[in-house]
Amino acid sequence: MTNFTLYLVTDRELSSLPLEEAVEQAIQGGCTVVQLREKHACAREFYETALTLRAITRKYHVPLLINDRVDIALAADADGVHLGQSDLPCRAARDILGPQRLIGISAATLEEARKAQADGADYIGVGAVNPTATKTDTRTVTSSQLAQIKAAVSIPVVAIGGIHPKTLTGLRGTGVDGIAVVSAILSQPSPKQAARDLLEQFRGLRHA
Amino acid sequence: MTNFTLYLVTDRELSSLPLEEAVEQAIQGGCTVVQLREKHACAREFYETALTLRAITRKYHVPLLINDRVDIALAADADGVHLGQSDLPCRAARDILGPQRLIGISAATLEEARKAQADGADYIGVGAVNPTATKTDTRTVTSSQLAQIKAAVSIPVVAIGGIHPKTLTGLRGTGVDGIAVVSAILSQPSPKQAARDLLEQFRGLRHA
Repeated sequence: MTNFTLYLVTDRELSSLPLEEAVEQAIQGGCTVVQLREKHACAREFYETALTLRAITRKYHVPLLINDRVDIALAADADGVHLGQSDLPCRAARDILGPQRLIGISAATLEEARKAQADGADYIGVGAVNPTATKTDTRTVTSSQLAQIKAAVSIPVVAIGGIHPKTLTGLRGTGVDGIAVVSAILSQPSPKQAARDLLEQFRGLRHA
Repeated sequence: MTNFTLYLVTDRELSSLPLEEAVEQAIQGGCTVVQLREKHACAREFYETALTLRAITRKYHVPLLINDRVDIALAADADGVHLGQSDLPCRAARDILGPQRLIGISAATLEEARKAQADGADYIGVGAVNPTATKTDTRTVTSSQLAQIKAAVSIPVVAIGGIHPKTLTGLRGTGVDGIAVVSAILSQPSPKQAARDLLEQFRGLRHA
């Protein structure tokens, strides 16, 4: 079973360190999954970055997921993909990826969450649970909606959107399996320390 | 052997008709290959358009190639891909696509053309052979460079870039196997007639 507790989503523009270094630090601090997201890179750069990150994530036995591009996930032999509602449909991606690789689906409603599970997703990313600066096209999910979605599906639920130490308490009682974080790790002076602190805080919250 | 004689590259913004209708007309007029290129569509829309065009191209036994997105080619069961120098490398795409599907590579130099052939490309698209309004990032290839590239490789060579009835004569003597066309077909009132005229003119040029 994949551990989705602390799920890093990359954004090279937010990273204060070179991306590879920030990701390695984040993993050392406790990130359990890495999703490579490239908003502006051409496919060639995206692929090359995937190869670089794959070497790092393998060293730490952490899964690497590729945002949107199923072909890059295959070409770089990544562990799976994360797909939004505007990306390839889950079932089409599954046909290409085979049964082993992970597929995550962004869901902002109960209906999307149920459909993702029915379509064979391995987990869902639910959000935005807070207003967020890193994505502008997001819909908002309240903590009670999040709890409702968590209760409605059996696959892991990762909360996403503006999660940082101050907003984390908003997830209390929702039962989510993990938190997806961008700037709260990558834009910090020490991604390692930031990851460690978030992990500790989230664990405390879950066992409260 | 694929017939690359009249190779249509789509651009929905240039099409005066709905894209599907323009493509069908272009095939009826003699287009032998269709490349679906979507500059701004999300992957979901790109995939859905690929499915629609696939139904049309299959009816006429014309190959459908997908620009850039190898995953969409696989998901839509298209006949292959066309890759630029910034897209996935040819060998990585071949690993994903298998030996049967077509891979075309954009080449603007002798070196790129030779590399594409060595990497297992099925054809190359060489250009821009004329200044073109539909791509802004292109390098220019003279007719003598084009002839040199054609002489250096054994895979089919398709000329691309600003090809229309008035510029077509510039390809005389280059030996190219086909011409790739966007606006000279799609932006015409009758894509069918435009394709027919271009095909006739190009055949005359080759046998002159």
